[in-house]
Amino acid sequence: MTAVVLLSGGMDSCLTCAYALDAGFDVAALHVNYGQRTQERELASFHAICDHYGIAQRLVVDISHLAAIGGSSLTDSRIDVAPHSSLVTRHSSLPTSYVPFRNANILAIATSWAEVLKAEAIYIGAVEEDSSGYPDCRDSFFDAFERVIEEGTGPDTHIKIMRPVIHHSKQQIVEESMRLAAPLHLTWSCYRNSDAACGTCDSCALRLRGFQQAGVEDPIDYVERPRYI
Amino acid sequence: MTAVVLLSGGMDSCLTCAYALDAGFDVAALHVNYGQRTQERELASFHAICDHYGIAQRLVVDISHLAAIGGSSLTDSRIDVAPHSSLVTRHSSLPTSYVPFRNANILAIATSWAEVLKAEAIYIGAVEEDSSGYPDCRDSFFDAFERVIEEGTGPDTHIKIMRPVIHHSKQQIVEESMRLAAPLHLTWSCYRNSDAACGTCDSCALRLRGFQQAGVEDPIDYVERPRYI
Repeated sequence: MTAVVLLSGGMDSCLTCAYALDAGFDVAALHVNYGQRTQERELASFHAICDHYGIAQRLVVDISHLAAIGGSSLTDSRIDVAPHSSLVTRHSSLPTSYVPFRNANILAIATSWAEVLKAEAIYIGAVEEDSSGYPDCRDSFFDAFERVIEEGTGPDTHIKIMRPVIHHSKQQIVEESMRLAAPLHLTWSCYRNSDAACGTCDSCALRLRGFQQAGVEDPIDYVERPRYI
Repeated sequence: MTAVVLLSGGMDSCLTCAYALDAGFDVAALHVNYGQRTQERELASFHAICDHYGIAQRLVVDISHLAAIGGSSLTDSRIDVAPHSSLVTRHSSLPTSYVPFRNANILAIATSWAEVLKAEAIYIGAVEEDSSGYPDCRDSFFDAFERVIEEGTGPDTHIKIMRPVIHHSKQQIVEESMRLAAPLHLTWSCYRNSDAACGTCDSCALRLRGFQQAGVEDPIDYVERPRYI
């Protein structure tokens, strides 16, 4: 019983991987570089988490053509990363870190691999609450994608998209990670830096707030750890 | 009014491009390499067709990670390309040239680009009849993908997947190409060769039959042009 787990190297996907293992799946771990600024640091976390869990089956895919397509502050160096309190939106309700249709690109790759592996599930660590309005992080999007998989793969292929953390708060992510002993000390969240986390970008702020609310100290290093989040 | 047109360099997508232009769209042409044996030849056809139509906006994307994922004779050199009369299937009803979920990967990229360009349509040259049972070449798959686009993109983005040749026979492809003066002499179909088409692979056989039934001579060169198709 195999599951393809999307493992970015962040907390959410780390806990998602812990859930897949806890459910008894053999995990095949997929990491996607999409030309984001911190991709080397995230890749290092991916391998560290795989090593921790003894996951041998790993696939690293580069989709940096999304950077060429542009339109996002994560991949386009001409757009500044906004501090979390002052999101400047391109569209009416989309944050600047939005990569157009990113999760669909990632799920398409995951499905191709899952079909070859005869996997029964794809695990993704999307979180609706803190996804800042990304349209491809919602249950309705994943439901629609499951339908595309059913229509677009062979007759013997049936793959569920598991999103065990989608309704978790960041506090719950931390608490559940503690319960399952997920290796959060190996994860990376910062959008801006690759050595010590900046502590001020949107992703750092969400992470730090989660640890604070769970009453747990974040084990990674920060350049600046804000007192009030 | 912009449309992203998937232009492989084959006849079907060439006619599809002609339809998009005929409908009055500004065309942005997307070509995808997926590690197939004849990708350089197909890329040359892509640029030749773009030059012919004066299409300036072009994007070439490499998704050869699909080759690493494997499972197809088009990308896996360990699997022979079957002659068209003796398809050896891996699954009960899938031909060996099937790349798992290929069209979903391609449409995901097309959608990312279309959202940035504020395009209203994606044109794809899928043909249900001669797609040999590829599950991701059917209307029901494209309908499901349109739903994914609606769910997974920004609130202002509405993109239709146009498939003007999906119910065409290869004879109709040739006849309609004549009517619209689509440059079939610049297209490439052979799965096996990159100089003169082999004339015997599945794709060559379908192409030659279409020209024969339309009563038109195929303008490209063949190593061997079978008398009976």
